[in-house]
Amino acid sequence: MPHIPLPDHLPGITGLLEYRLDTAMPIRNLTQILLRGESTLTQGERELIATVVSHGNQCRFCTTAHTAAADLLLGDHTTSEAVKNDPSQAPVSEKMKILLQIARLVQQSGKKVTTGIIEQAKAAGATDIEIHDTVLIASLFCLYNKYVDGLASVTPTDPAFYQRLGDRIVHHGYTRMPQGYDHLKTS
Amino acid sequence: MPHIPLPDHLPGITGLLEYRLDTAMPIRNLTQILLRGESTLTQGERELIATVVSHGNQCRFCTTAHTAAADLLLGDHTTSEAVKNDPSQAPVSEKMKILLQIARLVQQSGKKVTTGIIEQAKAAGATDIEIHDTVLIASLFCLYNKYVDGLASVTPTDPAFYQRLGDRIVHHGYTRMPQGYDHLKTS
Repeated sequence: MPHIPLPDHLPGITGLLEYRLDTAMPIRNLTQILLRGESTLTQGERELIATVVSHGNQCRFCTTAHTAAADLLLGDHTTSEAVKNDPSQAPVSEKMKILLQIARLVQQSGKKVTTGIIEQAKAAGATDIEIHDTVLIASLFCLYNKYVDGLASVTPTDPAFYQRLGDRIVHHGYTRMPQGYDHLKTS
Repeated sequence: MPHIPLPDHLPGITGLLEYRLDTAMPIRNLTQILLRGESTLTQGERELIATVVSHGNQCRFCTTAHTAAADLLLGDHTTSEAVKNDPSQAPVSEKMKILLQIARLVQQSGKKVTTGIIEQAKAAGATDIEIHDTVLIASLFCLYNKYVDGLASVTPTDPAFYQRLGDRIVHHGYTRMPQGYDHLKTS
């Protein structure tokens, strides 16, 4: 049961973003810019960063939702699984392997990001803005994971819920839709 | 040296917020709403939450800046020091002692916030929105701490810098001023 009263039909982050709309707006806007805005990282690559960070924080709601989004964008289920197990062995570019490792370090502590791994990222072709965005996306998903689990919001067990949520964030992004999250309801 | 090129005269978060203005805007707005908006927690109490979380993440820049802001708002230097050492022994209300402990748990992991400590907070008079805001402020400062340290932004050693920054965030808040951070320069 959540630590504060949240509507039963709005699990995970969805109920929190409807609980306080004024704080939800900048959180949504930041996510929309970072994950859906112009970038030399694909939307699928950015969802993989969200996924590995959420997985590192053991936030089941966020991990399952962003895995669903990444899988839809990438067209397979294997990449996200491999990335969660070990980014260095996943079927992604050399640059992404290192950016995903940087994201995992940020998830543990910002202080763990060494000059050495930044040099590796740059040698693999990562630009300054890609490094910046990787660190900021990883930091943002730590916010989400702590927000979702810190208030004990509900984690659905039905995989179909995450398919609907993944579909929504792939096709409609992170800004608020007029109907809130009502379209995600099962009944 | 920062991992990406940031202006020398803009240390810590200040250079990052000027590096990408589009992502900075929602981060600033969220902080302004949570730390300066209407609330039954005082601005000083909210700065103490920012301070204990930054201290827990060992982010020296953020800890020193928000300590300076809290001290200015509370009118003393002893409360913030006591809170960083052990919130349960600090000269704050019973409710704040527990909210600060919740913030420290969120800093470690959202999963550490138990039903037991939430019940203690409610018994000490904490409202649902105060609990919500404590968790979200703690999550937001984890974002800041990871952003600041994950990109190895510069941490000034001159205490006067943090006095100027504390003064700015107390008197002008977190939204962007027309001159950016130029007024914080020493020369």
